[in-house]
Amino acid sequence: MTIQEVFNLHKGDLQRMEFQLKDNLRSSVPLTFEMGDYLISGGGKRLRPLLLMLSARLSGYSGGNETLLCTIVEFIHMASLLHDDVIDAATVRRGKTSANAIWGNKASILVGDYLSSKALHMAVQLKDPRITATLAEIITLMSEGELLQLLSTGDVDVTEERYLNIIRHKTAILISGACRLGGLLGNASDAQVQALADYGMQIGLAFQIADDALDYCAVEQNLGKSLGKDLSEGKITLPLIHLLSSCNETENSQVREIIYADSPSESELRYILDLMNRYRSIEYALGRAKEIAESGTRALSVFNSSPELESFYAVAGYVVEREL
Amino acid sequence: MTIQEVFNLHKGDLQRMEFQLKDNLRSSVPLTFEMGDYLISGGGKRLRPLLLMLSARLSGYSGGNETLLCTIVEFIHMASLLHDDVIDAATVRRGKTSANAIWGNKASILVGDYLSSKALHMAVQLKDPRITATLAEIITLMSEGELLQLLSTGDVDVTEERYLNIIRHKTAILISGACRLGGLLGNASDAQVQALADYGMQIGLAFQIADDALDYCAVEQNLGKSLGKDLSEGKITLPLIHLLSSCNETENSQVREIIYADSPSESELRYILDLMNRYRSIEYALGRAKEIAESGTRALSVFNSSPELESFYAVAGYVVEREL
Repeated sequence: MTIQEVFNLHKGDLQRMEFQLKDNLRSSVPLTFEMGDYLISGGGKRLRPLLLMLSARLSGYSGGNETLLCTIVEFIHMASLLHDDVIDAATVRRGKTSANAIWGNKASILVGDYLSSKALHMAVQLKDPRITATLAEIITLMSEGELLQLLSTGDVDVTEERYLNIIRHKTAILISGACRLGGLLGNASDAQVQALADYGMQIGLAFQIADDALDYCAVEQNLGKSLGKDLSEGKITLPLIHLLSSCNETENSQVREIIYADSPSESELRYILDLMNRYRSIEYALGRAKEIAESGTRALSVFNSSPELESFYAVAGYVVEREL
Repeated sequence: MTIQEVFNLHKGDLQRMEFQLKDNLRSSVPLTFEMGDYLISGGGKRLRPLLLMLSARLSGYSGGNETLLCTIVEFIHMASLLHDDVIDAATVRRGKTSANAIWGNKASILVGDYLSSKALHMAVQLKDPRITATLAEIITLMSEGELLQLLSTGDVDVTEERYLNIIRHKTAILISGACRLGGLLGNASDAQVQALADYGMQIGLAFQIADDALDYCAVEQNLGKSLGKDLSEGKITLPLIHLLSSCNETENSQVREIIYADSPSESELRYILDLMNRYRSIEYALGRAKEIAESGTRALSVFNSSPELESFYAVAGYVVEREL
């Protein structure tokens, strides 16, 4: 099954979710609707709602609350993007001008606060303490992760383990949470809920590793733009961690010097990319992503094979192979 | 009963709350503890924990969870202060350098996010859906209020009604929520819980009106500093609303011109203060605060008289008369 077939299979569900997403944005403050609508129309993969839907279906759920939960998870995701862009002083998100660049940092902070509190407020109305507890834990861990990332910014000595810990909080916990919530909705057994959460955690890690590695591939066409930005912001991701641990001492100190520089020149960036090609650092990162995604699919062995299960495998393949 | 006697009466309770406040700040990220500890040691009136305690006691509660709930409410308050100071680009809070001025806006945004999500996470562990629902509603309404305030910034035509709506969200809802939570803990009747929430709402409004009016009194000693800041930020509070609706047309357009100016001069500020003295605008605002606080105490008539009830009256008097 291809990822497109998975999306087509759940087209109706996802359309209902899009509708409810907009509907729930209508609050007493029109700015929230305006900014939210802008974020929604910016697209995004809707990976979290898709996985929540799939997990609910795999657990045999057909009650109807999955649409609301998808909205809740997407609100939390949108809130974190809004705050992220303020923190990173981003000007572009998914190829469009970022919300903070249009409405300002103040509005982005406050609408982010609103979306995340509104999400919990909606969740409480489902009157399922396991769901409320899961969501409260997710947003707490996510904000801890953002802090971890802020504190390790510019730290060249970040290890692969520490990098994985950062992206676990930043990305994987919400994706894992989406899977867990689907399982809880369907009253899956504890072992099944845990298997779904484990799958989501591994898929989330693989997704972020691939995303970070693809930044280095994309840069080949448009040298220096995003790579230069990430480097001058001190964001150390897996290809660079691999490079620093693989290259020789002279190269290592040259790479460090470039990272510490305020804004690396094109030839300095080219030097890093050449080294990465030589040491196969991007391949290493993509290989790790693939391994981790595969360990995610293995977690699902507690489920009997079914067409729904095939969708999970397709998603696992997609997160590490998209846009390559 | 004086406010000091009220605080003395609950000294043990409040000390336990202070202890738990610090204890709950210890998370995996040391920065949270450092910033949280700085905020806590900055003092603050602890009005919200005090009212929560009092409401729990008035409702006959002695179970022990009130300390945790006080911490939760204080975390939500701290989170909103952190984000407020970033929004307002504040450099001072309660006479000390503000957290954002020390650790930067990024850390303030993220630690604010953390404290507010942690608060809900702790609340969920109490396993009382009424408490979770109350808190989720509070933080949603508070963030709506912050947005309302942002959108009305610099709007000279803000009415008293709209100003009250802003401070209701910004301040009164959390204070009202603290009272409601105390009532819920004690399993007070619906009418009693509502009475406590009504009292808290009115006390919260009165507190903020008085706070805003006192800014104009304090300025007499230290002309221009805070008043100038509020005006150049476009914060329109009750004394100014009263002045604009009381003065003649010439004065009105002169005041508007000063408000619209980027940074008003000392003589311009003096002009506004003189007009306020002439039209008794600060007295008007403090008079409104008193009226509203009194209507708050009337809401408590559903309770039989008791020493606990006396404490509520003392708090109502304190919020409108402090530091005058």
